[in-house]
Amino acid sequence: MALQDAGLWQVLEVETIPLDENALGRTTAEAVWAKVSSPNYHASAMDGFAVRAENTEGAGPGSPVILFTVSQSADSPMTAYVDTGDPLPDWANAVIPIENTEPLDKDGTLTAAIRGPASVRIRAAVAPWTHVRPLGEDIVATQLVLPAGHTLRPADLGAVAAAGHVELRVARRPTVGILPTGSELVPIGSELKPGNILEYNSLVLAAQIKAMGAEPLRFAITADDFDAICARVEEAARKCDLILLNAGSSAGAEDFSAKVVEKLGMLLVHGVAVRPGHPVIIGLIDRQSKIKGKKIRIPILGVPGYPVSAALTVDIFVEPIIAQWLGRPPLELPEVEAFLTRKITSPAGDDDYIRVALGRVGGKLLAAPLARGAGVITSLVRADGLLILPRGEQGAEAGQKVRVKLMRSHSDLDKTIFCIGSHDVILDLLAQFLADHDRRFVSSNVGSQAGLIALGRGEAHLAGSHLLDPETGEYNLAALRQYLPGVSVRLVALVHREQGLMVKRGNPMGIKSLVDLMRPEVRFINRQRGAGTRVLLDYQLNLLGISPSGIHGYNQEEYTHLGVAAAVASGRSDCGLGIPAAAQALDLDFVPLYHERFDLVIPKEYASNPLLAKLWIVMDDIKFRNAVSALPGYDIREMGKMILEN
Amino acid sequence: MALQDAGLWQVLEVETIPLDENALGRTTAEAVWAKVSSPNYHASAMDGFAVRAENTEGAGPGSPVILFTVSQSADSPMTAYVDTGDPLPDWANAVIPIENTEPLDKDGTLTAAIRGPASVRIRAAVAPWTHVRPLGEDIVATQLVLPAGHTLRPADLGAVAAAGHVELRVARRPTVGILPTGSELVPIGSELKPGNILEYNSLVLAAQIKAMGAEPLRFAITADDFDAICARVEEAARKCDLILLNAGSSAGAEDFSAKVVEKLGMLLVHGVAVRPGHPVIIGLIDRQSKIKGKKIRIPILGVPGYPVSAALTVDIFVEPIIAQWLGRPPLELPEVEAFLTRKITSPAGDDDYIRVALGRVGGKLLAAPLARGAGVITSLVRADGLLILPRGEQGAEAGQKVRVKLMRSHSDLDKTIFCIGSHDVILDLLAQFLADHDRRFVSSNVGSQAGLIALGRGEAHLAGSHLLDPETGEYNLAALRQYLPGVSVRLVALVHREQGLMVKRGNPMGIKSLVDLMRPEVRFINRQRGAGTRVLLDYQLNLLGISPSGIHGYNQEEYTHLGVAAAVASGRSDCGLGIPAAAQALDLDFVPLYHERFDLVIPKEYASNPLLAKLWIVMDDIKFRNAVSALPGYDIREMGKMILEN
Repeated sequence: MALQDAGLWQVLEVETIPLDENALGRTTAEAVWAKVSSPNYHASAMDGFAVRAENTEGAGPGSPVILFTVSQSADSPMTAYVDTGDPLPDWANAVIPIENTEPLDKDGTLTAAIRGPASVRIRAAVAPWTHVRPLGEDIVATQLVLPAGHTLRPADLGAVAAAGHVELRVARRPTVGILPTGSELVPIGSELKPGNILEYNSLVLAAQIKAMGAEPLRFAITADDFDAICARVEEAARKCDLILLNAGSSAGAEDFSAKVVEKLGMLLVHGVAVRPGHPVIIGLIDRQSKIKGKKIRIPILGVPGYPVSAALTVDIFVEPIIAQWLGRPPLELPEVEAFLTRKITSPAGDDDYIRVALGRVGGKLLAAPLARGAGVITSLVRADGLLILPRGEQGAEAGQKVRVKLMRSHSDLDKTIFCIGSHDVILDLLAQFLADHDRRFVSSNVGSQAGLIALGRGEAHLAGSHLLDPETGEYNLAALRQYLPGVSVRLVALVHREQGLMVKRGNPMGIKSLVDLMRPEVRFINRQRGAGTRVLLDYQLNLLGISPSGIHGYNQEEYTHLGVAAAVASGRSDCGLGIPAAAQALDLDFVPLYHERFDLVIPKEYASNPLLAKLWIVMDDIKFRNAVSALPGYDIREMGKMILEN
Repeated sequence: MALQDAGLWQVLEVETIPLDENALGRTTAEAVWAKVSSPNYHASAMDGFAVRAENTEGAGPGSPVILFTVSQSADSPMTAYVDTGDPLPDWANAVIPIENTEPLDKDGTLTAAIRGPASVRIRAAVAPWTHVRPLGEDIVATQLVLPAGHTLRPADLGAVAAAGHVELRVARRPTVGILPTGSELVPIGSELKPGNILEYNSLVLAAQIKAMGAEPLRFAITADDFDAICARVEEAARKCDLILLNAGSSAGAEDFSAKVVEKLGMLLVHGVAVRPGHPVIIGLIDRQSKIKGKKIRIPILGVPGYPVSAALTVDIFVEPIIAQWLGRPPLELPEVEAFLTRKITSPAGDDDYIRVALGRVGGKLLAAPLARGAGVITSLVRADGLLILPRGEQGAEAGQKVRVKLMRSHSDLDKTIFCIGSHDVILDLLAQFLADHDRRFVSSNVGSQAGLIALGRGEAHLAGSHLLDPETGEYNLAALRQYLPGVSVRLVALVHREQGLMVKRGNPMGIKSLVDLMRPEVRFINRQRGAGTRVLLDYQLNLLGISPSGIHGYNQEEYTHLGVAAAVASGRSDCGLGIPAAAQALDLDFVPLYHERFDLVIPKEYASNPLLAKLWIVMDDIKFRNAVSALPGYDIREMGKMILEN
């Protein structure tokens, strides 16, 4: 491969650094050999009396032996006090711990003066070298202490110091230039106008580079101007070992990256079969060397503009380069087997990296696919793992066993409460309070009905549900009989909440009830089939004799209350049924229409599980209750009440 | 508990930091809520043409629809070019990717001018909101972005930026003062005199504190002087949130720590039932507050002087305090089940932390106990895990299933070649070369004979062996029949090496052969029973008719060649049988006596395993062969030769 030919694939440079705590995490560039032994003398391992083992022979409980201290027995020294770490006197070959000795004064009576007794009485013999740390016990001079390519941990630094070193030879950290380009980009914190995009890729990339052990160098945003980008790349080539040129790497209209690389060096690759991340560019930029005639080539990566694509591109393509330059093995995420909670599809031509949430339910590890969009950075925040669908595979079925690269510890997964079903902002609040009790609360929002079905398949510890029975007007009981027949569950009330129509601030269209949805100018936004709110809508429409076909937008679906609110706030729709907290979140007005109960459904096998025990504690916590009450439209009167246990 | 009463167990202080890559690894002190939505407008997800979905109805392969661009159709705009990320025009509700369109010029013929066509021909209808990233797709304003107590990763920083923030509220890093005390201590790099101890505990502790996310503050060495230590502790109490007073915490003569704590504050605990680390001190130091009348108490830990004890004490006692002060959960090492390779004993009264090397052999995870001494820092360097024997348990048997806290990744364990048996410095060299081939080579030195027995029990991938058969004078063949009957193995020559007597520089006692061992003034140092060198000694003594009982020191055993060399170098003994590399290492003279072959014994099931394949590559590597030849007394003529395959 061309990059290898270019001689780039080796430790970049070796540097000498002082041996202090800042060496932590650096990688040794050379093997470290011991210059001295540790200990470098025979050391007492205890506070006690140094002796010759031969002189203790015959000592026993009934036959004590008395040894005279050096000062009392100048001609034939027989014992001497030593502290832990003291060198053993030349004539000694063992130490008796102080607590096994009886120091005596000149008259032969017991004394507390351990440092100055005339003699010491002992009642047990010792073998040679007892309680002695022989020279080289830890490290023998010339021995290998650490190999090259070793990433330094705290104890390593101690071993290197013990071996007589005060400096370390380590791989220099490569400098990685990060160049955000795009006329639409604005710095973080800017007042946003439509079309503006906050430039935070360079922040994420810099943090990734830093975590990999290299030095990030962030450049200011460069507008979509060919000459400006060329100038910036040339500047970066002078200062950096690797350049990440962010955005402008798709095949679209404002794509300068490939042209810039072609002008300033050599374009090696345009487009890599990885998703998200497709339009990756790889090339080499020529740098003028100070040594005349010597051309240096700096690798450059055109990194896609979408944040998830950008971050994954750096993990996949840049991390191995950094590893090589540091002389350490590339990072490998551990792999686990998990069962997919729902079907996914994928284009056959690409390796597809799918972010998943993970939870262990009934001994089975479950993988719930997160939002797929390359622009959804929160999918990386929520991700517990990466499922890789290799090119050639067009998807995977629900329940299929898949391999997942783990981004969380197993102990985190063991403390994960996996919730499925309907969404309510109270669940976010619950997650926060549970975090204080050492629990992760992961909720997958699929709607009430799909949640109960998933619960029946053993794919969650609990489900949030607010399914109205049109026959009885009761919540969830009929649904449990329908979707979880024969399953023992505990049904617990979480909150009562208002449902109503979210409308624009000031309610400009004067929407008062569901009847207004029939007006031709009113654009409604609906929830997905199976959502409790959708069931409520259909129930109420039926009571009112309104046909869904008469509602403009009835088939437009969102998956959360906040999604519905955002549709109204953006003007995409005029109203949607939902909860007041969502309306408040996006500064909408709210037309209250109904009350409903939001319950938690918990299979009996998990209800008394220590994992979920914290759930009951949080629901009883006055702080949690107050936080819920403070939100508009919520009523905690039945919180924690057991509605059913069968 | 008193420390809790003191109100110390909470986030120490909240500070505001800029949102940049230096925020990586900090812990959020408050939940982060979204200030803006992302995207904050309906954005095109592709480079293409914005349309109203309704206007594409009926378009098909045989029934194209032509949409006029805005400039051509000012009254009823029907399409407009948009780049990825551009806001959707007010009138549009979907985007058709550029590659699915046919831009036309004014004459209705195809044009390459995608930005300025007169019209666009399409051959497929699109649903509303296709290829549009709706407002709030990633983040909806007011939504929870990160909870409090979250340790920041790269993607988190992006999400916080996308949510409209430019700063973060994080827990202040606690400052931890590290105070080495002891008159025997000298700074690292000092010329060592007997009794001097290199002070590197503060280095290890500082690196640990740094790795935990706190700020270490190292103080200079304080001699064993009560007033000097008091003054240093008072200084640290003014500057730090926690004080680690290192050394002087045993009950011995130079123990000032407890007295210092009693004088300057309150002693809470003296002695903790943990081994190594027993003499831990916990207390509180009074600090004069600037606010009059308000007394501040700074926790202080008396940390034992032995390096392993000190490091484990910080892991066990300090890490949870730091975690609490940062508002994050304490670190938990994942636990695994492993099988012990040999019996261990432990005092019943303490929790005993035993460092182990780990390797996966034939699907079974094996734990080989490392050196137990609290002074052996290299045991922490080599440790792959910690086996905790809780108080009450007095040991564990060979083969027993034990729980081990894992300090390595599973992928590291999967690439570990677990070697047992005899020791040779060539094995260290082999380990180094194998590291370049992405293999960890862990060798447990138990001697040739014990190595073969362990191999028979399935406890290693291979064994190093140089067992001479007294009957035939052949190496290893008879031993294989004896210790591995019926096991298919491959026996491969590694090196030929000299064996001889290591003596002091200049050979002052004039030792020439084993016969000299019978001289009463000559103190010999032996290898342990089962070691190949011990077998060789006994074989040769027998040939010479020398009785072991006539050799002074025959029963003094060391476990490695270097251990024997160190015994001679230190003057503990006058000579020992071993290899020239060990003599050279400690600057000894060497009296060559014999030649022997050192072999590798590999059960057939592992011989063709990809894990061990790299072994054959390294043995063929000219660089490795040259490195071996460069050592004195080694001969590579048969390296890699198959002696036997049965």
